[in-house]
Amino acid sequence: MRVAVVAIGTELLLGQIVDTNSATIGRALAERGISSHLQIKVGDNHGRIVAALRQALEEADAVITCGGLGPTQDDITREAVAEVAGRPLLLDGAVATRIEQLFAGRGLRMPENNYRQAMVPEGAAVITQRKGTAPGLIVPAGGKVICALPGVPYELEDMLPEVLAVLVRRSGEEWVIRSRIVRTWGLGESRLAEMVAPRLEAVEGSSVTLAFLASGIEGIKVRVTVRARSDAEAAGYLDREEERLRAILGDYVFGIDDVSLEIRLAGLLEARGLHLAVAESLTGGMLASRLVGVPGASSWFRGGVISYATEVKRDLIGVTAASVVSEEAAAQMALGAARVLGAEVGIATTGVAGPESMERRDRGVVCIGVAVGGAVGTREVKLLGDRERVRAYATATAIDLARLTLEGSSRGIVLGGVSAGS
Amino acid sequence: MRVAVVAIGTELLLGQIVDTNSATIGRALAERGISSHLQIKVGDNHGRIVAALRQALEEADAVITCGGLGPTQDDITREAVAEVAGRPLLLDGAVATRIEQLFAGRGLRMPENNYRQAMVPEGAAVITQRKGTAPGLIVPAGGKVICALPGVPYELEDMLPEVLAVLVRRSGEEWVIRSRIVRTWGLGESRLAEMVAPRLEAVEGSSVTLAFLASGIEGIKVRVTVRARSDAEAAGYLDREEERLRAILGDYVFGIDDVSLEIRLAGLLEARGLHLAVAESLTGGMLASRLVGVPGASSWFRGGVISYATEVKRDLIGVTAASVVSEEAAAQMALGAARVLGAEVGIATTGVAGPESMERRDRGVVCIGVAVGGAVGTREVKLLGDRERVRAYATATAIDLARLTLEGSSRGIVLGGVSAGS
Repeated sequence: MRVAVVAIGTELLLGQIVDTNSATIGRALAERGISSHLQIKVGDNHGRIVAALRQALEEADAVITCGGLGPTQDDITREAVAEVAGRPLLLDGAVATRIEQLFAGRGLRMPENNYRQAMVPEGAAVITQRKGTAPGLIVPAGGKVICALPGVPYELEDMLPEVLAVLVRRSGEEWVIRSRIVRTWGLGESRLAEMVAPRLEAVEGSSVTLAFLASGIEGIKVRVTVRARSDAEAAGYLDREEERLRAILGDYVFGIDDVSLEIRLAGLLEARGLHLAVAESLTGGMLASRLVGVPGASSWFRGGVISYATEVKRDLIGVTAASVVSEEAAAQMALGAARVLGAEVGIATTGVAGPESMERRDRGVVCIGVAVGGAVGTREVKLLGDRERVRAYATATAIDLARLTLEGSSRGIVLGGVSAGS
Repeated sequence: MRVAVVAIGTELLLGQIVDTNSATIGRALAERGISSHLQIKVGDNHGRIVAALRQALEEADAVITCGGLGPTQDDITREAVAEVAGRPLLLDGAVATRIEQLFAGRGLRMPENNYRQAMVPEGAAVITQRKGTAPGLIVPAGGKVICALPGVPYELEDMLPEVLAVLVRRSGEEWVIRSRIVRTWGLGESRLAEMVAPRLEAVEGSSVTLAFLASGIEGIKVRVTVRARSDAEAAGYLDREEERLRAILGDYVFGIDDVSLEIRLAGLLEARGLHLAVAESLTGGMLASRLVGVPGASSWFRGGVISYATEVKRDLIGVTAASVVSEEAAAQMALGAARVLGAEVGIATTGVAGPESMERRDRGVVCIGVAVGGAVGTREVKLLGDRERVRAYATATAIDLARLTLEGSSRGIVLGGVSAGS
């Protein structure tokens, strides 16, 4: 069963509204194993809507339209669907009564216009409107079907299950489609693709598919999608594929699905009853802010010092390093934050966010310090991009290094006595 | 001139990503008076991409594609565009060199895969990649043109102006289209629309158009777009309309175009040679991070204390208030931050981000303190939404209140002696 979606509305083409309905429908179809084949957006123009519907019907077994069912003159989906299906529009008494009642219920007189919403193509089934005044329409068209839904997202979402039931019935077969996101940090997209290439070939033509989603400071995601006869079978496929990917990617994998870098770090801290404090220079609060974004952070996060000015580094957390952009400074900041804020673990960032270079260090040079129970280690990295990007990647890199260090990874920071020079 | 947009990516059809690029492009075309004719979404399938491109070329004078220019095997837009344009793909030495340099700059080896991104259809123009590794492509196809852009929104937005320039040139239209963003904070969209309604009527049918863009924590933007015969004429229209809007909106307007709340605040501080320090509880570094995002922040920003744990509020900045979610605490935090970090101005946030309520205060209750030269004032606000939204709006509200206070606005915080109870 192949389905095409036709989203109708000039405001969509003009970008005045972002079309989220097509995505909602696409997701719902995928979950039921119905192939989402094509999506078209057209303006409020009868000729173009008719053309889009004809094309969609040609390429797919069923068409879902959203939008253009309102009461005003520019809502013309009903007419276009009726024309394409070759069925005249007739006033549906039950629908009309229900619209009248909706208005009466709000103590309002029903405008004449709204009777347009009670016009139904002959032989079409109606999906009762519960949230708005426009009913949904399920209109047979040759051997195929056009399902017309309102464009208001919560009205559409309310009616979508009935449409999906119709489509699943028509499709005869009922696949279960499930996905799992394997989340990584520290690899470029193409390097990741190289490593996973053998799996891409292995699953070719099977019921498992792999896709890469580059998600900026959220890292790169590998999406595993499987098609199965049951939830249990799907879960089995997902588990096996996750296992294989973890075997290839090792601890570049930090989490699954909604587990972010900071949620993973929070888990490691909570498991050991450790508390965390931060000292931030170039990230200027971004690191703390990502950590505080984790619900329940108060059980493990103590707070932080944003030591932006050099005197603040010195006075508040006792940085003595000659250069504030140095691994020595990062080490002193991590130790200082943990000491001053009463935490067992400290993370520190210092570096050059740009636009200008600083202390003869280039923009993008970032030193990260991690202290655990009085021991400390550091790493210097070079990040690319503008001020915002350097700060965002410095933040994610710091969280990832702390994560790896607590995991005892060989890619983590080696903790030693207080670092050289301090 | 009619333009069709083809968005490419199976993840779009599956609804795993909402296609915002098509809306971005549609808006940009509309501003330049170019008709946005049709938008199609297809998956990563060579045959379907080719079919969609052929259809788009048939119905429009130019086609913009987004997505599928990445380095991996499932990025096949380049090949499809080359086939439709009837131009072989050739390795572009300059593009390859630039990609190699991007990797070298990060001290990374360039994977073989990335050379795919240096393949350019014969005779195509290249839009240099500044944000990512994929260049944009402007490919002649018969008398028409296909413009291929990356799917990563910030890469696409960086290249879009060059594409629009090409389209405007081809359209032969001589109009100069210019816009200006009048940025506001503190008004709901519908209230703003009410206030501006007279202007909306006044410009009806003129060469000036107004649009509202609700931009979350960036506030609500009023976009003024004018069509003129020359830059000078356009500038004149823009100046007059900005003047009228400012007369209506007063100091709800905090900036123009790229002037964010924090940039406006930075200007006020620099003009008076004042330094700023912050103390953050529920915002947890988000406030400092927005401030540090302003280039040159080191000239006025001293730093901050993220006093997330109660003991940190007490020990580091001397908060004695019985309740940490109170205007008294906010006042002590603002004064304490300024004192401890050696600044004339202090801003503090404390409150309940949720999900749970705290000290019997509901989620969304936020107290903001502003201290200037030893005097302090506070305000309690109630914010709606989830944890992230409450924190983000608390941050923006704090910056706006400091801005208004330094501007001497009647909507600012009244500064007095140290607040009651402390």
